[in-house]
Amino acid sequence: MGKTDVETVMFREINEIPDVLTRQVNEALHAYLEAGRQAAATSPRGFVTSARGTSDHAAMFFKYVMELHTGLPVASIGPSVASVYKTPLKLDDFICVTISQSGGSPDLAALQQAAGKGGAQTLAFLNETNSPVGEGAASVLPVLAGEEKAVAATKSFVSTLFAILSFAAGFTGDEKLETALREFPATARAALGSDWSKAALPLARAGSVFTVGRGPGLAVAAEAALKLKETCRIHAEVFSAAEVLHGPVVLAEKKFAALLFDPGDAAQESVATAARLINESGATSLWISTREGVENTLLVPAASHILLQPLTQIMGFYKFVEALSRNLGENADAPIGLNKVTVTV
Amino acid sequence: MGKTDVETVMFREINEIPDVLTRQVNEALHAYLEAGRQAAATSPRGFVTSARGTSDHAAMFFKYVMELHTGLPVASIGPSVASVYKTPLKLDDFICVTISQSGGSPDLAALQQAAGKGGAQTLAFLNETNSPVGEGAASVLPVLAGEEKAVAATKSFVSTLFAILSFAAGFTGDEKLETALREFPATARAALGSDWSKAALPLARAGSVFTVGRGPGLAVAAEAALKLKETCRIHAEVFSAAEVLHGPVVLAEKKFAALLFDPGDAAQESVATAARLINESGATSLWISTREGVENTLLVPAASHILLQPLTQIMGFYKFVEALSRNLGENADAPIGLNKVTVTV
Repeated sequence: MGKTDVETVMFREINEIPDVLTRQVNEALHAYLEAGRQAAATSPRGFVTSARGTSDHAAMFFKYVMELHTGLPVASIGPSVASVYKTPLKLDDFICVTISQSGGSPDLAALQQAAGKGGAQTLAFLNETNSPVGEGAASVLPVLAGEEKAVAATKSFVSTLFAILSFAAGFTGDEKLETALREFPATARAALGSDWSKAALPLARAGSVFTVGRGPGLAVAAEAALKLKETCRIHAEVFSAAEVLHGPVVLAEKKFAALLFDPGDAAQESVATAARLINESGATSLWISTREGVENTLLVPAASHILLQPLTQIMGFYKFVEALSRNLGENADAPIGLNKVTVTV
Repeated sequence: MGKTDVETVMFREINEIPDVLTRQVNEALHAYLEAGRQAAATSPRGFVTSARGTSDHAAMFFKYVMELHTGLPVASIGPSVASVYKTPLKLDDFICVTISQSGGSPDLAALQQAAGKGGAQTLAFLNETNSPVGEGAASVLPVLAGEEKAVAATKSFVSTLFAILSFAAGFTGDEKLETALREFPATARAALGSDWSKAALPLARAGSVFTVGRGPGLAVAAEAALKLKETCRIHAEVFSAAEVLHGPVVLAEKKFAALLFDPGDAAQESVATAARLINESGATSLWISTREGVENTLLVPAASHILLQPLTQIMGFYKFVEALSRNLGENADAPIGLNKVTVTV
């Protein structure tokens, strides 16, 4: 059984998140905003993103935030296009955004190089800037999470989302978002006080779990699904509230649970509909929101801008999943078969 | 228990696929090629795709084929960008590709309209052309699958992939691919003779299944995962061979199975590596390929062009999964809780 009294590295790193965010506000927010303004000044035709694992969930967040707030298309390019298939890219007037904690995966460095050759500006969000991706990028935005030792990334993910929103605020000139970003570390501290313990039993019992979101919140739902796999060996899969009704909902039955991320915006109704249909099939729906309402609400504090809400949601989730992992007797710090830097070509 | 002796609608529709492909070669290939040539002549900056469910797997196929063979970026735009969030899009010199069997979902029609307003050319791959999406599109390519009655789409998916490859052959001027497309109906008929019955027990036993591919084959791996959910209520999730090693592989254990789609190209090694790591954890890897080799190979006939291989793979899978569904006592024609036309906004 698990050593439930031992503090994991993952636990410590989750608790560092508010300090990381404070550091970002003090030392990097200005540079993030300026990078966004400069990118907007070049009038790009669109963006391509390149990332793997947890960082690819940050890329999904980038996609929704930028598509919704600029109307420009954001294409996730499989790194294999460059590393395996060697395709010459045509990306004049695009910005290629690479996202990575370590900056070390050769396929990401290869795609970034191919994108640059194809005419794109290259921009990298990195925790380790002294790395192959960092050395190859025209512009680097450090996410300042500090050294991350746990295999399951947490603080680097939240700080990357923060850097992305700051870039977006600069790109769109959104001063309300900029103000909210400055205020966010205090909200983040409150998010670590969330108590989701009532979610433990339904998730532990479930043979399968869906995590459901829509819009920018879909990215943190995807991240939650990966963490449930990595740290608890629970088969959780992410779906948009729309897609889940196109087939996957048939899996819902008594030994099934769903974690639904309330978007708190125009998409709220569609996620609530998915929750209701899943409940009707006898499964347990858990509703992650800033407001008590439906049964089984997992509360998070309200941020002062809707785009920051996914960050409080994933922080509440991280606290929860680390404890669940320990209580299930898993080793969140060193999941069997995983390394911190996964080298894919 | 299931009525294993009753012929399902899904069974009949799968068996119609070779005739559908013959119809496409005779009646539509010319128009598909010409649409590709005309699109290339406009020198687009990239593509955006819009689709849901099985059609979104066809969109994923479009993405890999076009990115690998033209170097242009392909962005999947969530239909919610237009239907829920009402974002004005900036898509000058892009082509917006909508893919749908029914052409009836209001969110797809709304995104197509918003893309047109944002400057994109609109092109729709549809089975039902007399539909809201069909009426709103500047160009329509009918996939000629005939009426599809089973909730689980099969023949319309394969015929959409065929139309996409034909469009790509026109776009890139690839005469070898054009020749292979003309020859393909005979190969497709042979694919229906595939015998994958040895895969039934490991999949039925598995609490969880991963389907794994890379490149264009990832799209059919995604489709296989959805069909295992819809028709067999097995929790199957798709991963690229690269992503599966970034965390998800920890789920692999004795009661776990993976279906691996051999890309047969430069990406083969990465999929084979995933197969090996999954096997080493005690799970069952099933290898879908044109060649006997490793243990547990599920054979499909070789197509005369590598890009057509995913079509034979998914046809072999469709035959298999329909039989598995019947033998498990499920009703593939009418999965509980699903409708043929899913209306999402």
